[in-house]
Amino acid sequence: MSSSSVIYNGGKSSPAETPGRFASVYSEVQTSRLNHPLPLPSVLKNPFKIVDGSRSSAAGNPDEIAKLFPNLFGQPPAMLVPSDSAGSGSDQKLKIGVVLSGGQAPGGHNVISGIFDYLQDCAKGSTLYGFRGGPAGIMKCKYVELTSEFIYPYRNQGGFDMICSGRDKIETPEQFKQAEETALKLDLDGLVVIGGDDSNTNACLLAENFRGKNVKTHVIGCPKTIDGDLKCKEVPTSFGFDTACKIYSEMIGNVMIDARSTGKYYHFVRLMGRAASHITLECALQTHPNITIIGEEVAAVKQTLKNVTDYITDVVCKRGELGYNYGVILIPEGLIDFIPEVQQLIAELNEILAHDVVDEAGLWKKKLRNQSQQLFDFLPQAIQEQLMLERDPHGNVQVAKIETEKMLIQMVETELEKRKQEGTYKGQFKGQSHFFGYEGRCGLPTNFDSTYCYALGYAAGALLHSGKTGLISSVGNLGAPVEEWTVGGTALTALMDVERRHGKFKPVIKKAMVELEGAPFRKFASMREEWAIKNRYISPGPIQFIGPASNDINHTLLLELGAQA
Amino acid sequence: MSSSSVIYNGGKSSPAETPGRFASVYSEVQTSRLNHPLPLPSVLKNPFKIVDGSRSSAAGNPDEIAKLFPNLFGQPPAMLVPSDSAGSGSDQKLKIGVVLSGGQAPGGHNVISGIFDYLQDCAKGSTLYGFRGGPAGIMKCKYVELTSEFIYPYRNQGGFDMICSGRDKIETPEQFKQAEETALKLDLDGLVVIGGDDSNTNACLLAENFRGKNVKTHVIGCPKTIDGDLKCKEVPTSFGFDTACKIYSEMIGNVMIDARSTGKYYHFVRLMGRAASHITLECALQTHPNITIIGEEVAAVKQTLKNVTDYITDVVCKRGELGYNYGVILIPEGLIDFIPEVQQLIAELNEILAHDVVDEAGLWKKKLRNQSQQLFDFLPQAIQEQLMLERDPHGNVQVAKIETEKMLIQMVETELEKRKQEGTYKGQFKGQSHFFGYEGRCGLPTNFDSTYCYALGYAAGALLHSGKTGLISSVGNLGAPVEEWTVGGTALTALMDVERRHGKFKPVIKKAMVELEGAPFRKFASMREEWAIKNRYISPGPIQFIGPASNDINHTLLLELGAQA
Repeated sequence: MSSSSVIYNGGKSSPAETPGRFASVYSEVQTSRLNHPLPLPSVLKNPFKIVDGSRSSAAGNPDEIAKLFPNLFGQPPAMLVPSDSAGSGSDQKLKIGVVLSGGQAPGGHNVISGIFDYLQDCAKGSTLYGFRGGPAGIMKCKYVELTSEFIYPYRNQGGFDMICSGRDKIETPEQFKQAEETALKLDLDGLVVIGGDDSNTNACLLAENFRGKNVKTHVIGCPKTIDGDLKCKEVPTSFGFDTACKIYSEMIGNVMIDARSTGKYYHFVRLMGRAASHITLECALQTHPNITIIGEEVAAVKQTLKNVTDYITDVVCKRGELGYNYGVILIPEGLIDFIPEVQQLIAELNEILAHDVVDEAGLWKKKLRNQSQQLFDFLPQAIQEQLMLERDPHGNVQVAKIETEKMLIQMVETELEKRKQEGTYKGQFKGQSHFFGYEGRCGLPTNFDSTYCYALGYAAGALLHSGKTGLISSVGNLGAPVEEWTVGGTALTALMDVERRHGKFKPVIKKAMVELEGAPFRKFASMREEWAIKNRYISPGPIQFIGPASNDINHTLLLELGAQA
Repeated sequence: MSSSSVIYNGGKSSPAETPGRFASVYSEVQTSRLNHPLPLPSVLKNPFKIVDGSRSSAAGNPDEIAKLFPNLFGQPPAMLVPSDSAGSGSDQKLKIGVVLSGGQAPGGHNVISGIFDYLQDCAKGSTLYGFRGGPAGIMKCKYVELTSEFIYPYRNQGGFDMICSGRDKIETPEQFKQAEETALKLDLDGLVVIGGDDSNTNACLLAENFRGKNVKTHVIGCPKTIDGDLKCKEVPTSFGFDTACKIYSEMIGNVMIDARSTGKYYHFVRLMGRAASHITLECALQTHPNITIIGEEVAAVKQTLKNVTDYITDVVCKRGELGYNYGVILIPEGLIDFIPEVQQLIAELNEILAHDVVDEAGLWKKKLRNQSQQLFDFLPQAIQEQLMLERDPHGNVQVAKIETEKMLIQMVETELEKRKQEGTYKGQFKGQSHFFGYEGRCGLPTNFDSTYCYALGYAAGALLHSGKTGLISSVGNLGAPVEEWTVGGTALTALMDVERRHGKFKPVIKKAMVELEGAPFRKFASMREEWAIKNRYISPGPIQFIGPASNDINHTLLLELGAQA
């Protein structure tokens, strides 16, 4: 019954140089995951060839995208199909680089394992370099050669610590030059960029740049983000979303049973997801909370903070009448970014605080517009102070630091107190706040994410081997058994639109927001009234790697696939 | 691959009356746990008899305990042993009540299942009543008859929602009278009290009272608390500790990999456990954090808040020199209760705030003793305000509301800033705070807690059937396979000492604190210097119910058993 642990010594450099699994100690579950077999889609297990589809366009403003990507625009999607002739791609040995870009997501290590194994299986003698610390590693040519021994301890493990990540971008002509120098120095045939919407946009710019300058290095992107907001028809989901949502849902389910057992707390749970509310929606579908706030809906119907507060308060009152003085409420991290009046207030505050002295008497407040002044007064004192005091180096209010869940608790408390005095509420209200974020970004990837990531990486290897560039690795048909998954690449330019910034058009991969007409939101919307009043809590329990539910995929993906079918 | 769910309709009353699993929806993992087989110790599977040991004493002040429990003091421990004659206990049908008392702990439902199954197996035709909402349910005679259908949906499930819990105590003569009336009304042969140290003390008082008044109702206690501070030689662990620590350790492990991957955050994790630091110690043994603060040690060596801050800051500096600007730090919820100077400050503040006006100029501060004034000034402003503003209905400072982890982050920041200016620190420091508490109290119990609780409940049934009272259900030899576990009961009076309160002796079961000479602390102490500087993080991963690590028991128990052996 004792816990055994194993020590790996994967790296060769000093600990400070290798922040990874150098002499790491592994738990039994971690160890067992190391040898978890990763099934490949059939098409990757047998000889395959690549078939191109028809010319692609862009997600919006194709003319502008065409101008920004003269060498890449219009590339057809590539699809891997079984081939009679043995041996896919060329016989050439490849030199490939890989980089992790942006925030952590469970499964990143498996993308790298997938690339590595492709090279081992199909382009023997190839070399894989891991750029350290994100895109900065490309610019500074900081890398490690990834060997079988180096990679092994990271297989099916969470985190990005194999080569770490970073948030730098390759943007300026000088930075592109540095990337080029690295590509030439290492004689790179290809580069795989594992990242979110920004990083994949960057990957495409890099691909365009290399091609424009006749640098041979091809670039392939991989869709990563726990936020789930990088997806399209060809890329049904970003990796990490499945695992992160299941970890959060385990916690939410536990808190729900606690709420029901104790009978006296309202748990306000803030979940990661600043731009889009996919995580919150998915966790709601997994656990059935009493109240769920979806940022996209708040924005669409132009709700004010008062509206949101009233909605929560109304449900609390109704539940109070039924004898329920407890509940669970999910809130997306980015909620206040979705509320137009809050954005307005913050913009005005940034302006005022940059130029004026904040006087004790509060005369400065007169400079706020009427609506903003009202909103400011409506906010709890602690939040007012936070808005005034905590500013970033540019003097801007730090919206990210506002603990939305605590703010809402205070606002609901105030509103309930009012109703109590009016005699319309007789219940008891005690709020408990939670923020689930860092707990979910580096968990051991689920079987789904493990397999999906491995296929994404393997596919990226195949695409590079076939001479493709400017594509994002695309694995589809995810509702079917792994054997039947489809594998290919989608033109990154096809995912793009432009945004006007500083008078120039900038290419962007539009974030996929929660669609109010999409199947996941509609399912949620059809059930939330029942969830509000009746307690339909589900506790998904901890992620299992063997046995029941171990191969389940998340509700969002399942519903979206169902709606497509 | 789809997620299936099952609806149970266990209760018969309305939802408001049955806050439990009435028409609950279950996840696949929850459903799979329902039919998880529960092995029993061999002695419970075959005919057994009860053998009494020798007369017991008390944990302290036996003379006073003898006076307080004239009818029960000195009871021998009872041990179940195999018997040749079939049929244990009498042929009598029993009427038994059960109550959950205090905070939730994973496994409570299995104790009830164990009692129920014992009665089904060995005293057919018996009745089990569940008192609703804790001890108040006994006093108000609020109960539900527990049937096979009612209990089934709760088997191996987390939470206390089958009958809910409560924090009331049966203390006054009137309350004892009410309990007596319920016992008579329901014609109870026995009552099982599932609770922590206070609740088991209460159980013993109830047993004494019933016997003193010739009420036939016998009382048996069961050791419950995630805090792990109710244990002794005969009761090696309280249930729920194993599951809760594993849930927290899953989260800590994830945060560790995140810390290492990101390389720029110090995560300060506060863990439940107000009185004792067992949870923090166990989580440290499971995950190997860089810094762990154990309250009992802080108290033993009389550390000040400044000492604790300096200790953390020193490690941060050393790590900075090695290039590590990240780390994970565990802090017990009750930390500041362990610091003598803080207790002194709070006592003085309570006094001052009760009588004096707090003037803006801060003259009131002059009333603090010198040391307290210094400490107050040392505290971050937000904490000063919290101490001044947030008081309970009695006007007392609410220590529980102080977010110790945030306080420490601010104090370490200040100290590092100082060292930076002195030129002795050149690193970067960013703190992230976490509190893991409610997430762990109601998770699906581990295989260990599921089995242990079932045995505790089954044993409680056996003890009542054999006419025992005033004992706590005791299951031992937990390091061995379940078949070899020992089963019996220990006199609750043997666990007791007295405390003098309001001039009277009060019986108390002393909380088991972290022993600085005990095997778990010694193991931790022998490794913490290495953990501080080298990164020996272990990520235990999510609790598994099948396969690797699914039958592991926690380090604390394992080490304590090892030290005994």
